Amino acid sequence: MNPPAVNEAAFSWPVRVYYEDTDAGGVVYHAVYLQYLERARTEWLRAVGFGQRELARAAGVLFAVRAMELDYLRPARLDDALTVTVDVMQLKPASLTLSQCIIAATGEPLLTAVVRIACVDTCFRPTRIPSSLAKELSHAR
Amino acid sequence: MNPPAVNEAAFSWPVRVYYEDTDAGGVVYHAVYLQYLERARTEWLRAVGFGQRELARAAGVLFAVRAMELDYLRPARLDDALTVTVDVMQLKPASLTLSQCIIAATGEPLLTAVVRIACVDTCFRPTRIPSSLAKELSHAR
Amino acid sequence: MNPPAVNEAAFSWPVRVYYEDTDAGGVVYHAVYLQYLERARTEWLRAVGFGQRELARAAGVLFAVRAMELDYLRPARLDDALTVTVDVMQLKPASLTLSQCIIAATGEPLLTAVVRIACVDTCFRPTRIPSSLAKELSHAR
Amino acid sequence: MNPPAVNEAAFSWPVRVYYEDTDAGGVVYHAVYLQYLERARTEWLRAVGFGQRELARAAGVLFAVRAMELDYLRPARLDDALTVTVDVMQLKPASLTLSQCIIAATGEPLLTAVVRIACVDTCFRPTRIPSSLAKELSHAR
Repeated sequence: MNPPAVNEAAFSWPVRVYYEDTDAGGVVYHAVYLQYLERARTEWLRAVGFGQRELARAAGVLFAVRAMELDYLRPARLDDALTVTVDVMQLKPASLTLSQCIIAATGEPLLTAVVRIACVDTCFRPTRIPSSLAKELSHAR
Repeated sequence: MNPPAVNEAAFSWPVRVYYEDTDAGGVVYHAVYLQYLERARTEWLRAVGFGQRELARAAGVLFAVRAMELDYLRPARLDDALTVTVDVMQLKPASLTLSQCIIAATGEPLLTAVVRIACVDTCFRPTRIPSSLAKELSHAR
Repeated sequence: MNPPAVNEAAFSWPVRVYYEDTDAGGVVYHAVYLQYLERARTEWLRAVGFGQRELARAAGVLFAVRAMELDYLRPARLDDALTVTVDVMQLKPASLTLSQCIIAATGEPLLTAVVRIACVDTCFRPTRIPSSLAKELSHAR
Repeated sequence: MNPPAVNEAAFSWPVRVYYEDTDAGGVVYHAVYLQYLERARTEWLRAVGFGQRELARAAGVLFAVRAMELDYLRPARLDDALTVTVDVMQLKPASLTLSQCIIAATGEPLLTAVVRIACVDTCFRPTRIPSSLAKELSHAR
């Protein structure tokens, strides 16, 4: 059987599993996958020219997770080399919904996630995604 | 307006926010809430007499998160004193589904979660919840 | 043999080990002890009336770790109930040096630390410890 | 003034700062640097052919931190691109002492560390470093 096809259009980012990520069950601790997902989202933004620190400083906006649906399919282990993908499902003026996947070196999916992100100001009130960034993200779809 | 009523029957566990839990946005980092949820689940099991280390050692079982639906409603901040609740939604032979909530000192809900947990053996294969524990959990509903 | 005497004058704070704290070696991950040390320092400040969030907001000061010497004596494991102590070794106008210890339920020391903390402003420049706090800390010795 | 020269012979590993690494003070949380140090040590071992998971499984040995001296010189911030170095100070039959440094993109050192590591068996008893690895490490000096 072939490994499930990964959407070629998705952004992807490599992640390595270190001791810090594992727990006494011998596998990656379940909350750590959210860090992997966020690293990939951060690098996806950086790849289209937007660093999160600069976004907070210059545009006064942050991206805050509003909702997540997570399916844990198989555990990852120490030293595993994983790939994390990012795909835009929906882009709205002040929020976006992403489909993300964490994939083993064998091609097997370990976790799938639907992540809804809101653009907020520094007081955590919803605000529009800066237009220059929104333009890049709509191209990225 | 009254704060939303918290189900009095639910198990609850206090959590304090420390610097380790916060991020540069000034709020609790979104993955950290999963740690809070897990601390409450662990204490809920301990309250009915089952330590997780002992469960792994004596019965050879672990509880692994299979799926989560998370709604982030409001951010928590440094020094906040939070309450985390645990409620059984469904109890099956080899899995259980919990409803959990993280609540501010004001009574406002900050996060709601539906968490599906599988009972697995030390090779992460699904296995029955030990009968003595299943009995306690069915009473806890 | 008696467990080593813990200095009765020290402030102490209980900490429980959860899955989030452990690693695939089956023990508490070495960086996590620094979080335990910091929780105890935070509660020690709170016990004399100073919350860290309030200190940052009202007085514009933070406490930043400048140096640490850590000796890891024995590993802690899942579900262990630990005690973390705080003792003032030296109090200077803009810094303080603390002796801290993490102790097992058996009384055995697991980790000893000497921690040098600087009082800094929100730009991380050294600044005097607020006098009301310095007074409390000098009593605490 | 020139940035301090980094020992060209040292192993070095790049690390990026993400939100997960920062705290409400706006900088990298002090315990997170220990994770950066450990990632570099892990990659240094991998670079000479030894994965830690394989070492635990095949040779039954782990590397446990016994002692650390840490000097925090300057804070790192969100999105910073850091370099972590590893240098062998002393190699003994069952332990090694490393000098490590975390360096900003500007060349400025942010943290220096002396780390004493013991080779232990899976019960955390001191044991000899496997000879094939010891040979590689003595060449690496």
